[in-house]
Amino acid sequence: MSKIKLGVLGSNGYVGYELVRLLLNHEAVEIKYLSSRTHKGKKYYELYPNLYGKIDLEFEDVNLEKCKELDLLFCATPQGFCASIINENLLKSTKIIDLSADFRIKNAKVYEQYYKIEHKAKDFLNEAVYGLCEIHRNEIKKARLIANPGCYTTCSILSLYPLVKENLIDKDFIIIDAKSGTSGAGKEAKLDSLFCEVNENIKAYGLKTHRHTPEIEQELSLALNDEVVLQFTPHLIPMQRGILSTSYVRLKEKLSEEEVRAIYEKYYKDEHFIRLLPKDILPQSKFVRGSNYVDINISLDTRTNNLLVLASLDNLIKGAAGQAIQNMNILFNLDEKTGLQGLAEI
Amino acid sequence: MSKIKLGVLGSNGYVGYELVRLLLNHEAVEIKYLSSRTHKGKKYYELYPNLYGKIDLEFEDVNLEKCKELDLLFCATPQGFCASIINENLLKSTKIIDLSADFRIKNAKVYEQYYKIEHKAKDFLNEAVYGLCEIHRNEIKKARLIANPGCYTTCSILSLYPLVKENLIDKDFIIIDAKSGTSGAGKEAKLDSLFCEVNENIKAYGLKTHRHTPEIEQELSLALNDEVVLQFTPHLIPMQRGILSTSYVRLKEKLSEEEVRAIYEKYYKDEHFIRLLPKDILPQSKFVRGSNYVDINISLDTRTNNLLVLASLDNLIKGAAGQAIQNMNILFNLDEKTGLQGLAEI
Amino acid sequence: MSKIKLGVLGSNGYVGYELVRLLLNHEAVEIKYLSSRTHKGKKYYELYPNLYGKIDLEFEDVNLEKCKELDLLFCATPQGFCASIINENLLKSTKIIDLSADFRIKNAKVYEQYYKIEHKAKDFLNEAVYGLCEIHRNEIKKARLIANPGCYTTCSILSLYPLVKENLIDKDFIIIDAKSGTSGAGKEAKLDSLFCEVNENIKAYGLKTHRHTPEIEQELSLALNDEVVLQFTPHLIPMQRGILSTSYVRLKEKLSEEEVRAIYEKYYKDEHFIRLLPKDILPQSKFVRGSNYVDINISLDTRTNNLLVLASLDNLIKGAAGQAIQNMNILFNLDEKTGLQGLAEI
Amino acid sequence: MSKIKLGVLGSNGYVGYELVRLLLNHEAVEIKYLSSRTHKGKKYYELYPNLYGKIDLEFEDVNLEKCKELDLLFCATPQGFCASIINENLLKSTKIIDLSADFRIKNAKVYEQYYKIEHKAKDFLNEAVYGLCEIHRNEIKKARLIANPGCYTTCSILSLYPLVKENLIDKDFIIIDAKSGTSGAGKEAKLDSLFCEVNENIKAYGLKTHRHTPEIEQELSLALNDEVVLQFTPHLIPMQRGILSTSYVRLKEKLSEEEVRAIYEKYYKDEHFIRLLPKDILPQSKFVRGSNYVDINISLDTRTNNLLVLASLDNLIKGAAGQAIQNMNILFNLDEKTGLQGLAEI
Repeated sequence: MSKIKLGVLGSNGYVGYELVRLLLNHEAVEIKYLSSRTHKGKKYYELYPNLYGKIDLEFEDVNLEKCKELDLLFCATPQGFCASIINENLLKSTKIIDLSADFRIKNAKVYEQYYKIEHKAKDFLNEAVYGLCEIHRNEIKKARLIANPGCYTTCSILSLYPLVKENLIDKDFIIIDAKSGTSGAGKEAKLDSLFCEVNENIKAYGLKTHRHTPEIEQELSLALNDEVVLQFTPHLIPMQRGILSTSYVRLKEKLSEEEVRAIYEKYYKDEHFIRLLPKDILPQSKFVRGSNYVDINISLDTRTNNLLVLASLDNLIKGAAGQAIQNMNILFNLDEKTGLQGLAEI
Repeated sequence: MSKIKLGVLGSNGYVGYELVRLLLNHEAVEIKYLSSRTHKGKKYYELYPNLYGKIDLEFEDVNLEKCKELDLLFCATPQGFCASIINENLLKSTKIIDLSADFRIKNAKVYEQYYKIEHKAKDFLNEAVYGLCEIHRNEIKKARLIANPGCYTTCSILSLYPLVKENLIDKDFIIIDAKSGTSGAGKEAKLDSLFCEVNENIKAYGLKTHRHTPEIEQELSLALNDEVVLQFTPHLIPMQRGILSTSYVRLKEKLSEEEVRAIYEKYYKDEHFIRLLPKDILPQSKFVRGSNYVDINISLDTRTNNLLVLASLDNLIKGAAGQAIQNMNILFNLDEKTGLQGLAEI
Repeated sequence: MSKIKLGVLGSNGYVGYELVRLLLNHEAVEIKYLSSRTHKGKKYYELYPNLYGKIDLEFEDVNLEKCKELDLLFCATPQGFCASIINENLLKSTKIIDLSADFRIKNAKVYEQYYKIEHKAKDFLNEAVYGLCEIHRNEIKKARLIANPGCYTTCSILSLYPLVKENLIDKDFIIIDAKSGTSGAGKEAKLDSLFCEVNENIKAYGLKTHRHTPEIEQELSLALNDEVVLQFTPHLIPMQRGILSTSYVRLKEKLSEEEVRAIYEKYYKDEHFIRLLPKDILPQSKFVRGSNYVDINISLDTRTNNLLVLASLDNLIKGAAGQAIQNMNILFNLDEKTGLQGLAEI
Repeated sequence: MSKIKLGVLGSNGYVGYELVRLLLNHEAVEIKYLSSRTHKGKKYYELYPNLYGKIDLEFEDVNLEKCKELDLLFCATPQGFCASIINENLLKSTKIIDLSADFRIKNAKVYEQYYKIEHKAKDFLNEAVYGLCEIHRNEIKKARLIANPGCYTTCSILSLYPLVKENLIDKDFIIIDAKSGTSGAGKEAKLDSLFCEVNENIKAYGLKTHRHTPEIEQELSLALNDEVVLQFTPHLIPMQRGILSTSYVRLKEKLSEEEVRAIYEKYYKDEHFIRLLPKDILPQSKFVRGSNYVDINISLDTRTNNLLVLASLDNLIKGAAGQAIQNMNILFNLDEKTGLQGLAEI
């Protein structure tokens, strides 16, 4: 079988790099094209000597004619960029997996409110498939344009989906307290991302207004078939990769922890990349670092009547590049696990 | 004025070290006695060359006769130890500030349930004053035995106290999601505290059962004059020092954020070590690292009706050694700030 | 082809884990047996939930009868253990790759002096092949017992080998200043390895006496065919994995940097796992983290007449588990790269 | 006594902040003026909430008229800035301690070669006193303009000074392998200083060309009264603060380790801020973090004939702000330790 010809726009960032790294060990693909606004003409390995000897491509300008020769284009570009270049002509020749937020939120007004930029491709919002693989697999198979979900959102949605889908929890009492490593902020020269600012520090940010909030609410509302409004509070912690979300919800009816667990098992028992951990093992970000897994566990507190749901993933893998490749595998009818077998180091 | 003669039991641990470090720069005291079960005969600076040239004392065995010659004894010892040595005779000559949990929880049964050890000095539970300086200052002044509060508890109680004292929040909806650096686990050779286990990792622990839960509940119940049961979830993050707590509560009546802020100001405006931050500045653990401050801020989410309260302190200073010295200053009628003027480094 | 049946003694440590992790994705092997002195009866994933869903084996006791049924045994055990169990009978059925130091140093007296334990299998010292793949590939192919090199030693020897082999440098002026992450200290509950001890700290250790010194000297002496005595100074830095060595040597004759580079190329141009980096790219530990590469570069200082040689590897991969698997691949006539294609994450 | 009126130019950077933090607890001074090119009009605590409640000043523009009203001006400004504003008129009213490199190197050509900028105040080079307190104390007392030494240079010079001054070592064999935390790179939004670039990584940089090289050589040449050319190699490690230098030198004559130690004692025994550690305690950066100490120890390797000299300091304190305040104390006839009593935290 001939290999899938693909390209990565915005390949110089952390997500772009992780895409390239994973794709280099993916047996069914061939990277033909890597773009970057700022590194044109430079060898890819000059920016990432991690890959010296493995890739000889140079960074190129964005060139839509070149994109059209590809089977698949990954956009790991800033918000608004993918929406600014997409068109019917391009989609006719080339499938697109967009890792930005451009096509995640169906309501362009909400997008514009949270992202503070005009949406330039509203016509494609309807067609775009929200690429949360385990929830939307069937639509993904037939898609031309996939909106790859955010990191916090993948973690949050997957950890609450069975409860919401089954209408088991009070929809006015959903609190998601999330903690993330700093690679989520991207490879940008910002004071806030300096080692001396991040190290030995923890802070909350985006209080009440974080951009992933409407994305989580959209998907959980869809699952519930009713409007969900929830509290989402992200925190930045001094590590590179990994997200842990601790969610607090309340069951509408009395269920035992075992019964709740059984519901999660019903939804996820056949999902390779969702690991419902054994009763006594709580998710830790190190268990999934570098892998495409989401680890989930639940704990019912009969003293307070709160149900705690903990979940963890690697924000650059299942939260970005890994899920994008999983989407590609689904799209091209490959084994969903292809190229995604990496396991967490110590 | 002659200097206060004091000693530190358990001076080899992280809290013990921070006590010694701070006391060496405290103008009104003289360290006379340092004990450790395991380092007898060694110079203090051999374990902590940080202090080479500043202290020449050796570690000694625990010796109650020696303790009686002191004006004040700090116990930075494991749970149960202070309760096992305390007696009326000792307290006649020497005041005690116990940094363990032995005298924090008034109900010995609750102590024994959470700490899994027998309480050996129940007779002193009533006399012991809970040394949360800003709340119990008047009782501290007259105390012989002070139970220095826990790190999470200081942060949690102070951040919610005005709301609870004024009976403003739904007592069945209090969620405290706390994150801590790893020095809280003490200087013990445990696998879980290894660099390779802690670094690049986040995990929740003590879910539903953490020992600081009953301590927080006791003090908030006292403030409310009604029983408070709350959710407290601590997380371990890869840093040495610092706690950030993010609390989620609900107001019983409609108040604006400004009104809530005014209530905090009423309680804390004259408290040197409690900083209610300006509206746009959220607490970060780095702002208080190495200092005795607690930073607090609030944020009302009118979308979800949740009130968020964020607070941060240094678990080894305001959460342990610093507050113990603050207690000493109150006890000995010194300016409460003496020896506690350290400011957070970058 | 039937899979290689193998086992790992000491599989609970960091090196043991990395062996298991890598071997699980190695197409030609089957893990049949995992031992640990302390975790018998526990599932492997209970200790390392990283692998939950990937491995269902339990830890077993050390059992030589079981070992004999294996094609290959990895010993990731403490110093002295492999020497205490090895015998001719075992070697008849089962090849051994020992990741401890037991068979690295040919002179048992030197071993005993540096390791402070008696060598219990001196008879096998002669047979054991020093498993530095790129130098001893031909002997490895025929070996029954392979002494897998140390982490610092692999980095140091490979970075200086061409210079020494070609007799180009002053053998009395070799200074290796090495820096390592802390996983090299193993998964042992030691105060010195605590997060709070390692974080925000750098220290030299093993000054003049580090155990890897005689190993480096033995191999360089062999290459030179003359006795090499050198300065090796390791430092512990606050990271988990990775070694960078900075070596200072002096050329005996005047050579340009390009001429020196050409000599390295002569030796290493066909070595997949040794990357001689382009002139302007210096090795950094992040470039090789998680991979089996050694990155090397040189720089000649015409102002001081010193030649600087920098090299970096991942101490748990090329410095331990990865090289052990590379040795296995050579031993069993597999492509040397099998199972070792992991690339450094961001 | 009236307080010293002082100002800090470039007060927004890490060194500027540490100056402000230390000066706020210095009993003899009053901060009157803080400048920053980019934060004019902002409260100082808005940038550094660490100091909320301790300082109410705003950032101002650079204003030489204002500077003239000060007793002392600290310049924590980029290279070239202090040289661009200095003039005789200013120096008549106001003493200057410049923490940039502008007046460190006596030879303007060397400065221009290493710093790639024109020197705009060559006339003041002769007058400027190199503010390495322990070496140039007497000249500092009478100075108007003090060039505060670099961080690496303070560590390197002090660690080798007795050996060089006594002409004990081979001047062609001096290798300084230094390791530093990342705050040395300043508070600038640079990709290389991002958490995700620095964390879990070590790299050498400035190989053969680091700007501190001529500074170290100048001072050691002065001590020796002969030209010293040496190898200086800095490394960046994943921590915020702290430098450890490991130097390799050779004694010209046979001396025992004790004899060498005695020479260091002769020079440093009365220096409060230089701690020659006991024989078995090697410097570690954590021992000096946050303090103004330099810790030094030596070790003679009779096997290789190399003498190892290890030294450590906090690059932001003794390597910058602390030494600047020490210089101020000398200049204004205060106890040299005033305001510099901070001790390293755990």
